[in-house]
Amino acid sequence: MSDTAVRTGRRARGGGGAARRAERTAVSVETAKYIERNVPNFEVLTEEALDIIEANAETVLAEIGVNFVDNPDALALWKDAGAVIEGERVRIPRGLARKLCSTAPSEYTQHARNPERSVVVGGKNLVLAPVYGPPFVRDAEGGRRYATMADFEKFVKLGYMSKWLHHSGGTVCEPTDVPVNKRHLDMLLTHMIYSDKPFMGSVTEPSRAQDSIEMCEILFGKEFVQENTVMTSLININSPLTFDSIMMGALEVYARNNQASIISPFIVGGAMAPVSVAGTLTQVMAEVLAGVAYSQLIRPGAPVIFGTFVTSIDMNSGAPTFGTPEASHITYGAGQLARRLGLPYRSAGSFCGSKLPDAQAAYETANSLQMGLLSGVNFMLHSCGWLEGGLVASFEKFVMDADQLGTLHHFAKGVDLSENGQAMGAIAEVGPGGHYLGCEHTQANFKTAFWRSDLFDYKPFETWDEEGARDTQVLASARVKKLLDTYQQPPLDPEIEARLRAYVAEKKASMPDAFT
Amino acid sequence: MSDTAVRTGRRARGGGGAARRAERTAVSVETAKYIERNVPNFEVLTEEALDIIEANAETVLAEIGVNFVDNPDALALWKDAGAVIEGERVRIPRGLARKLCSTAPSEYTQHARNPERSVVVGGKNLVLAPVYGPPFVRDAEGGRRYATMADFEKFVKLGYMSKWLHHSGGTVCEPTDVPVNKRHLDMLLTHMIYSDKPFMGSVTEPSRAQDSIEMCEILFGKEFVQENTVMTSLININSPLTFDSIMMGALEVYARNNQASIISPFIVGGAMAPVSVAGTLTQVMAEVLAGVAYSQLIRPGAPVIFGTFVTSIDMNSGAPTFGTPEASHITYGAGQLARRLGLPYRSAGSFCGSKLPDAQAAYETANSLQMGLLSGVNFMLHSCGWLEGGLVASFEKFVMDADQLGTLHHFAKGVDLSENGQAMGAIAEVGPGGHYLGCEHTQANFKTAFWRSDLFDYKPFETWDEEGARDTQVLASARVKKLLDTYQQPPLDPEIEARLRAYVAEKKASMPDAFT
Repeated sequence: MSDTAVRTGRRARGGGGAARRAERTAVSVETAKYIERNVPNFEVLTEEALDIIEANAETVLAEIGVNFVDNPDALALWKDAGAVIEGERVRIPRGLARKLCSTAPSEYTQHARNPERSVVVGGKNLVLAPVYGPPFVRDAEGGRRYATMADFEKFVKLGYMSKWLHHSGGTVCEPTDVPVNKRHLDMLLTHMIYSDKPFMGSVTEPSRAQDSIEMCEILFGKEFVQENTVMTSLININSPLTFDSIMMGALEVYARNNQASIISPFIVGGAMAPVSVAGTLTQVMAEVLAGVAYSQLIRPGAPVIFGTFVTSIDMNSGAPTFGTPEASHITYGAGQLARRLGLPYRSAGSFCGSKLPDAQAAYETANSLQMGLLSGVNFMLHSCGWLEGGLVASFEKFVMDADQLGTLHHFAKGVDLSENGQAMGAIAEVGPGGHYLGCEHTQANFKTAFWRSDLFDYKPFETWDEEGARDTQVLASARVKKLLDTYQQPPLDPEIEARLRAYVAEKKASMPDAFT
Repeated sequence: MSDTAVRTGRRARGGGGAARRAERTAVSVETAKYIERNVPNFEVLTEEALDIIEANAETVLAEIGVNFVDNPDALALWKDAGAVIEGERVRIPRGLARKLCSTAPSEYTQHARNPERSVVVGGKNLVLAPVYGPPFVRDAEGGRRYATMADFEKFVKLGYMSKWLHHSGGTVCEPTDVPVNKRHLDMLLTHMIYSDKPFMGSVTEPSRAQDSIEMCEILFGKEFVQENTVMTSLININSPLTFDSIMMGALEVYARNNQASIISPFIVGGAMAPVSVAGTLTQVMAEVLAGVAYSQLIRPGAPVIFGTFVTSIDMNSGAPTFGTPEASHITYGAGQLARRLGLPYRSAGSFCGSKLPDAQAAYETANSLQMGLLSGVNFMLHSCGWLEGGLVASFEKFVMDADQLGTLHHFAKGVDLSENGQAMGAIAEVGPGGHYLGCEHTQANFKTAFWRSDLFDYKPFETWDEEGARDTQVLASARVKKLLDTYQQPPLDPEIEARLRAYVAEKKASMPDAFT
């Protein structure tokens, strides 16, 4: 007990020599606090442009409307709220959706079981979570293959070991060796046991959202869950303008239980939205307004995030493309719309279309990550590990991207204008033609002055060449292995773990396997 | 004659059937116009912070001063202007340097021999030029080796063939097989003959700057050169606060002849400047103020650029590091200082420390390129081809980076808010649950809607796998070969070419080889 408690930096509750010995040998797992930006956002749109887009979004809601499919209860709620219902079409009079959105909080705390890992989503903050959803995994050794539960566990462990990652995520890969109707149980159990960072709930059936709530009640206590947000889950809108009953059913479960949802249009530009930036932003705005408003009809005050997943498309092949300027325009613009609506914003990620963690992947990803920071994103899903348009979770790319997330942390700190930061003494001390390496100011500040990669090669050419001329992927393979080899499980009350395991076993036994 | 004229898109002056046949078979070499930003700059510093840094820079100039080494004429000029001279130290009273800078133009046109390729440096514009200075080259086939004149010629040809590159650059690599005292002649001749884009002059000796002027007088005509700017050359400051006589000698030649110079501190943070961002910006500001002021003492109105080359350092190894957040802070901040001073701004580039054109290289480069666009850079040297901290010019990375420069062009266009851009008709036409791929608006706009890489792989996994599972470097090697294979020389008056060749031959014959 004291052993594991020491490992997470909490005070050891007992033990003498044994605890001290454990402390000396324990692996230090450091997690940076979520990013609190001390830099401005980049705003690509003028106020006038934002006014046009918002007005157009209201027109879309009032004149075209949205569909709530297979969901008579939703239609009834909308009717009571003042919308015009025709079949499954919901036309929302101008101003109504925005008014309903006003009860959603501008920020909320998502609690982790280790309180030091809790995150505040909204404001100037940025919370980083790993890739979500890939059915395949890839590593240099094994190539591309269907993901399994063993892969899933490895990714959760890597996430726990990644300093710049604040969140354990959700479906870090799809464990295809577990039946579809049971895998959410194993996935949640893995997040709860192998990490102490916050995580996401299941959305693939309303009943699985309910299971997620019940497992959190075991982990956090029933009362705590009702009074606090312990999950942030991903509710995709079936763009254009369609809200399906499965996703809405999960949203309903989470909103009723005061758990957070990302309400997120899922758009490949030119396919699920107009081929233009302003047109896509209009549709995004309309969809988010309708989705967030609906969440507040379920429970006013339920925490929700303004989501935007958007990529461009290669019109030659129909493939989604990433790290492109048009996707950046949309992400910057949607951030401005989210701030005007007063909601936390989710977008960006380690997006790329490449099949390998190569230069293409890194250009596309770096473009997306930098843009995510400057666009004011508050919750960045997919911030590491994404490969091949999201079809693949890559082990190497996970640690490559996770390392790059350090650049976002350091950039967001802004510029130190203190007397020490101004360094006038150093300039006077060194003078023309001098050298700063040995001066007092450098000695006092060099350890924290510059961000340093934990992965990249900074050695001279000759040393690097003698060591095997390794490229980034080779270095990353070694880092994956090192992190997994040194992984130690964060402490968890054995009774809680036993109750979670029992819950999962019981649930699994209660139904036959289903693979669709 | 008509054949070659057709190839650059100019009207063929003669020929009938032959010219038309040539037109049909000619390779189209498209060059995008320099970037005219329709997006704001990102400003990391507040006005208050800028005031502090500017005031500190004036303090540095007044109290610490700068050294003009081995340059009595410069000291005399400074003395006449009101500076306090002590040995080689020049202390510049507050406000004097800024006042002298006021005669420098806020923008200027650099003429190319093909008028369609002339560039306007300053304002909202961004001109992209290739890597400068590496003694080594690398490609996948031949590995890393000393650069030769043959390599130099290939890079100039690649630059000419690169759509998003506006400028042919200068020392795209150091042709180490040509004597040091003669290589500037071969380099200039190559830029003049194998490209029709603007280029840079020699700065390694004042006499070589003079040679550059004389060759331009052959290419453009003597009168044209005196009345117009036809070169932009790189004058590095020997940071901290030192102006050596060779670089200043070259600056003097160029300024007297109304040719443009980039006045550029060259800083590895923590070595040539304080280890803090604000301290480095203070030194950059002081150095640029002094250098630009000096250029205006030589000739008021001479075109100059506020330069900033800055990297962070890995304090473990002493290696410069690239694509880091602190370098970004400095680049953004220096852009703000340049705009307040009313000068064109040079910074950023395809910077990386990696030895290979791999993921490390691409992360670092993408961070630097994106930051360069948003920091308001007007002239981006090193925008493609930089590898291994600038020691290596990489053929593959040249075309990889040059492709990425397309993202800067498209992003800089900003968001189209026209009726077509708003796409309300498309949203109404498609409606909830529909698909945009076939709609009229998509058909009318898809060709120009999204930037598309000419290099990256967008194919489905299976196709890509069957084609050999090529990574970016392999694709780039093929592209290098294709561009060089299809290269055709832009037309040049044979008499001018003969005169240039004669000038070079005569100059070379006039002095013994020197390799230092």
